[in-house]
Amino acid sequence: MEVVILGTSSAAPTVRRGLSSLALIREGETFLFDCGEGTQFRMLKAEIPRRKLHHIFITHLHGDHIFGLGGLLSSLNLSEREPPLHIHGPKGIKRFVDFMTTFPRPTKFGFEIHVHEIAPNTDGPIWETRDWIVYTAPLDHTIPAMGFRLQEKDLLGRFDSETADQLGVPFGPERGRLQRGESIVLSDGRTISPELVVGPPRPGKAFAYCTDTAYCGAAQRLSVGVDLLVHEATYGDAELELARDRKHSTIRQAATIARDAEAKAFVATHFSTRYEGPSLDVLAKEGREVYPSLMMAKDLMRIEL
Amino acid sequence: MEVVILGTSSAAPTVRRGLSSLALIREGETFLFDCGEGTQFRMLKAEIPRRKLHHIFITHLHGDHIFGLGGLLSSLNLSEREPPLHIHGPKGIKRFVDFMTTFPRPTKFGFEIHVHEIAPNTDGPIWETRDWIVYTAPLDHTIPAMGFRLQEKDLLGRFDSETADQLGVPFGPERGRLQRGESIVLSDGRTISPELVVGPPRPGKAFAYCTDTAYCGAAQRLSVGVDLLVHEATYGDAELELARDRKHSTIRQAATIARDAEAKAFVATHFSTRYEGPSLDVLAKEGREVYPSLMMAKDLMRIEL
Repeated sequence: MEVVILGTSSAAPTVRRGLSSLALIREGETFLFDCGEGTQFRMLKAEIPRRKLHHIFITHLHGDHIFGLGGLLSSLNLSEREPPLHIHGPKGIKRFVDFMTTFPRPTKFGFEIHVHEIAPNTDGPIWETRDWIVYTAPLDHTIPAMGFRLQEKDLLGRFDSETADQLGVPFGPERGRLQRGESIVLSDGRTISPELVVGPPRPGKAFAYCTDTAYCGAAQRLSVGVDLLVHEATYGDAELELARDRKHSTIRQAATIARDAEAKAFVATHFSTRYEGPSLDVLAKEGREVYPSLMMAKDLMRIEL
Repeated sequence: MEVVILGTSSAAPTVRRGLSSLALIREGETFLFDCGEGTQFRMLKAEIPRRKLHHIFITHLHGDHIFGLGGLLSSLNLSEREPPLHIHGPKGIKRFVDFMTTFPRPTKFGFEIHVHEIAPNTDGPIWETRDWIVYTAPLDHTIPAMGFRLQEKDLLGRFDSETADQLGVPFGPERGRLQRGESIVLSDGRTISPELVVGPPRPGKAFAYCTDTAYCGAAQRLSVGVDLLVHEATYGDAELELARDRKHSTIRQAATIARDAEAKAFVATHFSTRYEGPSLDVLAKEGREVYPSLMMAKDLMRIEL
């Protein structure tokens, strides 16, 4: 699993920072979280595979998180992409996608676009496949906003073929049953229990994405034990009041979420354009007082999980 | 007058080429022609002054020419910009701007936004100030599209103060009258004609912008004698049929417009994403057979007029 942070600025871009968007790539499949203006450019630059982009998750409907959708859809349509594309987001996202794909005239798409509007205050799983589940929880922002957690399912334990050979387990369905946790009885009457040949299940990895939000419990719940949390950190301590008014987090609050959720890694992002150079170092220092290994997001930063 | 080409790709961006947009800066004032996704990023990178951006001219309503408007307006609003902003474009541009500034909730702007919808087939001046006029003419594209010509008014001739002193022309309104082309009579009875102290009027510069369009007479008329023509050149000779079907120009057609209009300089832009490296050199060669000094547009290219 690899996370590529595509844009890290809050509200408006700077010369160095684009608008909110993040790609997650696992098993060749790409997931997009938010799609601010310029997302498709960053995807090209970062060489994010687009053919297997099946899901886009939108946190909220502010322009800096969605204005890249129209262009991305148009460019995907010009490529030879075929599978359906699912766009998940708050109530209203359908109206936005409809407008962008019908103005000034309806565009004919070579693939299906399914827009899934998530009801306000939804708290739980919203999409599940054989291999992963995406959960959402309502964040605390000036308009409805939702955080996301992508949770891989636990993988079956590793099958120890050598030991199975030694025990005389035949090739065939018996091995599958052992892998799935069942005991089998061999033709000579011996019972082979799965523990003998199958290792412990390997826990799936988890990623959480929380933006835009004031400090809130839902962000912490979504982030419990994740391998990586990406959480907004729009302001520093000096702007605590502003953070409260505008329903954003200070980096200290974001780091507190990461620490209390026991996130294994934490990237702070979505910085106000007022921070650059030394003032950004101050922010990093404030956050690291709470979560020492905090990483400060940069555009096109890649994190392997 | 300086022109900065912000995006040069047709329909979809590439790693090197962004979407259609062009800035023109004269006397400290910025004009924007088209506003594809990413325009605000390119403006930051090219250090285009934004405070004195008063006019945006939109050629047509395809996404690759307008999807940057929402983000640009939002970012302008976050800056301390105050003067009114005029957006000129085809019928429908108002609906687009209205949507982008009211979704999901109406944005409060710190400056006035005036959207001017230009009636289909308008052919003539659409905006005039003391110093310049913008003309439009209908191009030939799959949806209504318009070309633009920004024409500086001729400047008055230079006033030769030294000669005026020698001739005994007093300081005061007499000099203003001479400057405006009137003769004056001095107190000693001598008549001073303006030619004696005022140089010839200095012709204003002109710039034309024609995209997207098939080869058409309107583009040529707009471009007559301009100091710089920027004209789309989506395809090469080999794709002449495609150019016809999709109502785009080949670079040879664009160069023909430039040659026949006697444009003093010509930049070809809006290249199909299929051209890169050697195939783009082929395009350049085709165009230069007609207009030898043709320049191939690159993102962030600057041209002084």
